[in-house]
Amino acid sequence: MTPPPARPQKQRKQDTLHRLEHDVDVWVATADPATGTPYLIPLSYYWDGSTVLVATPAASPTGRNLRATGKVRLTLGPTRDVVLVEGTAQAFEPAELPDGVKDTFAARSGFEPRGLTAHYQYFRITPQRIQAWREGNELQGRDLMRDGRWVLPD
Amino acid sequence: MTPPPARPQKQRKQDTLHRLEHDVDVWVATADPATGTPYLIPLSYYWDGSTVLVATPAASPTGRNLRATGKVRLTLGPTRDVVLVEGTAQAFEPAELPDGVKDTFAARSGFEPRGLTAHYQYFRITPQRIQAWREGNELQGRDLMRDGRWVLPD
Repeated sequence: MTPPPARPQKQRKQDTLHRLEHDVDVWVATADPATGTPYLIPLSYYWDGSTVLVATPAASPTGRNLRATGKVRLTLGPTRDVVLVEGTAQAFEPAELPDGVKDTFAARSGFEPRGLTAHYQYFRITPQRIQAWREGNELQGRDLMRDGRWVLPD
Repeated sequence: MTPPPARPQKQRKQDTLHRLEHDVDVWVATADPATGTPYLIPLSYYWDGSTVLVATPAASPTGRNLRATGKVRLTLGPTRDVVLVEGTAQAFEPAELPDGVKDTFAARSGFEPRGLTAHYQYFRITPQRIQAWREGNELQGRDLMRDGRWVLPD
């Protein structure tokens, strides 16, 4: 099957922002720095226009890894329409975030950690690198953000 | 939206084997043990009934991480129909695998690393743990394989 023509970068950036705004779940990859063990789970998120907010139990592998390393790799979309985000994560206790942020998180992600028995933390993920590609013909030009800056201006 | 009723374990195992046999791509999470940096990419694979075979450049982050740690976490399917595989990886030079295996890999995965300029290695991933779930009501009973053994016999 011949893949469709490669999208220009402007289109890829638009598609990527649309996905970040409208998707609900993201794959979250982290690593245990002591053992080199990778971890990968789906989490619901909220994109505020520049960062990805997730919530997970503080004692979970993902929570522990994010606090230990601050390093995370996210993917959105299917394997043939990839958005890949390399980012840094900052942990927040629920009390440290404004109610409005937590309300919006619950509304957009469909997940409300407040009131659950387990101790949840929020993690704000700031993208440092974003790539987007569909098939092999889009590997060239897949870097949409480098060092925290969009390659194409708005 | 009310999720459908939780599938019994037998159905989940059947669905999981069907997906392993018929899907083409898998998300591959690895970790750099020196820095705790997670890595996550999609790769095409071939499931031979008990192991997952992938191929990636020996010098790529995934190739380096797999050789360094032997640890990998795979996911198949969308975030609301998850198959998650925790496994151990063994590296093979192309010359170490029988031609029949490499031929089948190319046919099933749609990817032929032989003849490419880059030095590719094959990695055979043996599942140690397999989980499958769709929504929250399937979190219970999600372990289909533990310590390399299916929880339910064939």
